[in-house]
Amino acid sequence: MRDAFHQELDALNDRLVEMTRLVRSAMSRATTALLDADLSLAESVISHDADINQIYQDMERSIFALMATQQPVAVDLRVAITALRMGGDLERMGDLAVHVAKIARMRHPESAIPAEVRDTILEMGQIAERLVTKTGSCIASHDVEQAKELDDDDDAMDRLHRRLFRVLLAKDWAHGVEPAIDITLTGRYYERYADHAVRVARDVVYLVTGDRPESAAAS
Amino acid sequence: MRDAFHQELDALNDRLVEMTRLVRSAMSRATTALLDADLSLAESVISHDADINQIYQDMERSIFALMATQQPVAVDLRVAITALRMGGDLERMGDLAVHVAKIARMRHPESAIPAEVRDTILEMGQIAERLVTKTGSCIASHDVEQAKELDDDDDAMDRLHRRLFRVLLAKDWAHGVEPAIDITLTGRYYERYADHAVRVARDVVYLVTGDRPESAAAS
Repeated sequence: MRDAFHQELDALNDRLVEMTRLVRSAMSRATTALLDADLSLAESVISHDADINQIYQDMERSIFALMATQQPVAVDLRVAITALRMGGDLERMGDLAVHVAKIARMRHPESAIPAEVRDTILEMGQIAERLVTKTGSCIASHDVEQAKELDDDDDAMDRLHRRLFRVLLAKDWAHGVEPAIDITLTGRYYERYADHAVRVARDVVYLVTGDRPESAAAS
Repeated sequence: MRDAFHQELDALNDRLVEMTRLVRSAMSRATTALLDADLSLAESVISHDADINQIYQDMERSIFALMATQQPVAVDLRVAITALRMGGDLERMGDLAVHVAKIARMRHPESAIPAEVRDTILEMGQIAERLVTKTGSCIASHDVEQAKELDDDDDAMDRLHRRLFRVLLAKDWAHGVEPAIDITLTGRYYERYADHAVRVARDVVYLVTGDRPESAAAS
């Protein structure tokens, strides 16, 4: 039986897992909104971001209260402080899904995404979802080996990001500057989303082992 | 006379101020490198980012050690945890300066910035520097009123960012897609840099008052 303090730490962990579910769903809906020019889906991503922010704020408050009243040391201190940072990364992933949804909303009723890059954007969305699903499962299981696997998906995201630029810069790009700007920003949002997912997974490694994996390449 | 523990907290504060100086200088050099297509300046920004990362890592280690050994409560706990977050934001600002420098390097010996947007980029660079200078002075002085002033500079940055898009989307834009992509990303880097500077200043308010100013608009 865990004592009250450790039950609170477990509850924090559950809330982080819940955040991964919410930001996964947000990015999944944002991707569909973008590809299908679905305004109501875009609006739902934008309005529900407040829920994600609220969970993070509540979590932050609980962690401060926990640290002030329980004065954790060693592993428990590491868990509390790292949970704060993980929550911050997940909250930011929600913002990035909102950015994608806002591009969909801005171009509605058109789609911001011309046919030539639909596949790439769709794949970026899928990898984003896969990354955050794995991140959630790492948080739940504290599986260090799985956390290390995320780097492969992150590499796949970087490859797609480069493919996006190749299409934009190809001689036969016929859509001009405005869609190129939308796609440049969209690509950046997916790439940053992936980076944050990887950071959270690296924090799981740190939580469990006390060792910080090599920090994410500047991006 | 401050006791040893509070001297350590003061030292943390000094290191945060030092980080603002380093990331200000990095962005200043990155802006010049970009506008003047100065390769060696771009390289210097890129290679010196490791120093900024090192300061942050050392700071992180000290804070963990401090919390584990001293078990601070109330205000002291808030100072320690908030310093961690501020350091994280400043470290990220260094990364954003590197991104700007990498665009300069990628287009060398050309300039990535056509004449029509030079003024705007120059102003964005100046506002970025002004913001981080003020942020540094807020950290040093714990001046809450000054911290609140940063929002005006951040608004100015957002206006410049919108101006950038207007130029890119104007009918007479003659430079095609590649410079538009560079400028879109560059604009985004300055804007994010400013957002992080504002977040750090808001954390000063939080440190001093215990109240969290309204969180930065999603961006």
